[in-house]
Amino acid sequence: MSKLLCVGTVAFDQIETPFGKTDKILGGAATYISLSASNFDHVDVGVVSVIGDDFPKEYLDLFMKYNINIDGLKIIDGGKTFFWSGLYHNDMNTRDTLDTQLNVLENFDPVVPQHYLDSDIVMLGNLHPAVQMSVINQVKKPKLVILDTMNFWMDTTLELLLEVIAKVDVITINDEEARQLSGEYSLVKAARKISEMGPKYVVIKKGEHGALLFYKNEMFFAPALPLEEIFDPTGAGDTFAGGFSGYLAQTKDISFKNMKRAIIHGSNLASFCVEKFGTEKMLSLKEDEIKKRLSNFEALTQFEINLT
Amino acid sequence: MSKLLCVGTVAFDQIETPFGKTDKILGGAATYISLSASNFDHVDVGVVSVIGDDFPKEYLDLFMKYNINIDGLKIIDGGKTFFWSGLYHNDMNTRDTLDTQLNVLENFDPVVPQHYLDSDIVMLGNLHPAVQMSVINQVKKPKLVILDTMNFWMDTTLELLLEVIAKVDVITINDEEARQLSGEYSLVKAARKISEMGPKYVVIKKGEHGALLFYKNEMFFAPALPLEEIFDPTGAGDTFAGGFSGYLAQTKDISFKNMKRAIIHGSNLASFCVEKFGTEKMLSLKEDEIKKRLSNFEALTQFEINLT
Repeated sequence: MSKLLCVGTVAFDQIETPFGKTDKILGGAATYISLSASNFDHVDVGVVSVIGDDFPKEYLDLFMKYNINIDGLKIIDGGKTFFWSGLYHNDMNTRDTLDTQLNVLENFDPVVPQHYLDSDIVMLGNLHPAVQMSVINQVKKPKLVILDTMNFWMDTTLELLLEVIAKVDVITINDEEARQLSGEYSLVKAARKISEMGPKYVVIKKGEHGALLFYKNEMFFAPALPLEEIFDPTGAGDTFAGGFSGYLAQTKDISFKNMKRAIIHGSNLASFCVEKFGTEKMLSLKEDEIKKRLSNFEALTQFEINLT
Repeated sequence: MSKLLCVGTVAFDQIETPFGKTDKILGGAATYISLSASNFDHVDVGVVSVIGDDFPKEYLDLFMKYNINIDGLKIIDGGKTFFWSGLYHNDMNTRDTLDTQLNVLENFDPVVPQHYLDSDIVMLGNLHPAVQMSVINQVKKPKLVILDTMNFWMDTTLELLLEVIAKVDVITINDEEARQLSGEYSLVKAARKISEMGPKYVVIKKGEHGALLFYKNEMFFAPALPLEEIFDPTGAGDTFAGGFSGYLAQTKDISFKNMKRAIIHGSNLASFCVEKFGTEKMLSLKEDEIKKRLSNFEALTQFEINLT
């Protein structure tokens, strides 16, 4: 049984899209990552994060229900859980952050539980690079460290972020962020420059336009599954990361060939995430739905061509 | 030997991109379509278009050099060739039209040469729907009629355009135009609505984000090959259409399975087109380059996954 450590926010989200508006609902990078990874058998998924005592017990029970270990989820007495509120525009590709309340995240000093100090894979979700670095320093010789981050940290703590980037094996980042980080418009050039900063593998997420995996001189592309309707993109990138890392943990194979499959599994799970608000779809997902859609991915992308 | 009839503009283009600015150079939908299709052996490629007597003989010689029949290319004495001038912005995805001079296109009444009246495939490039309809009415029982069009005709002659759409087997259209034509934001829904207007096959071009093929309840996606640099997107869509139609003409197989391959061949050729200004790259393209890049496409998209 592989151990997969998921680091990131556990949060309240309030989301508005052209389809409607939610109350404060369960959200956060570590939430989506761990829920997504929990779809893979034989993976011991643990979370490191922080919440306030305003976080409902029913949400904590959800983690347990999906066999996600929350020993590393620190609850701050009298503290308030991280809150994010966002508004998506008609094209669902752009959003405005309406409100961000860091609350208990402000002074978060992560402690990796004893049981996860020998994690096989560490999935660092979007969070302050100082927190990510602290976790890297605690876990002993993981087989793979995967980093997800955002432009916010490039704008505010670039130096520290670069130190984290130098220490990870895989970085997942969206296209605009890859351009910002590298100063290159071409994603091929951007990936090469980012790889020179440390990560052997660079995953560039293009939202509804799919994801690219770069490794040395090789490239792999997975489309996003074209959907009838995208209700809420929140958490899609984290769900992708959870599927990617969960599959790698399950298969214990970090070859480029297997990373391609991991990208497909990540894209597959992300395609479910966006079909309902927040975590709703991920919480009702059935194994046969996942398998059926994987075969849709195969039909969508596979062709036979005579190259002789 | 299949006959492929290519209808569209033959033009002068003046192009400005962040990489530089051209003089008046060879351009036009029929030019790119036929040059692209000429890469397929055993296809008799003919052009129907119109130019003025300002069109240089060296350009006419180019068509001949690539075995493109120009009996249907009418030369108007004292007329001026269609001229288009455009400026691409930094992201290469948006462009401004700086100047459009219809000139000899204004009163173009296409005459399909006798030899092409029994064409197997008719590729209708972007042009006034009245011209497209006239060609449809002249060609006897083609096996496949493919239509490319643009938002300009939706804005100005929608009714006539819809009559053309009702008569074709395949439509190729970009994502924004598919949305405009269907009134649906989701491309899955848009394709379904457009299919109800007539075409059994709907190809939605997403530029650097690839192309989608819809047929009944099936979907196929081909990415655009990620490139180091895109110099000039002009003609990429037409080059795609030329590769798509040229491959179908060569293989004489219009099944969905073969259309998938045709999409890959079209995407492959389009990936070359954008590497230099105008037609420059297409005029120096070697067979082994094409084959090599086809194998890159395969490496980019193919994966093995255990679905049991």
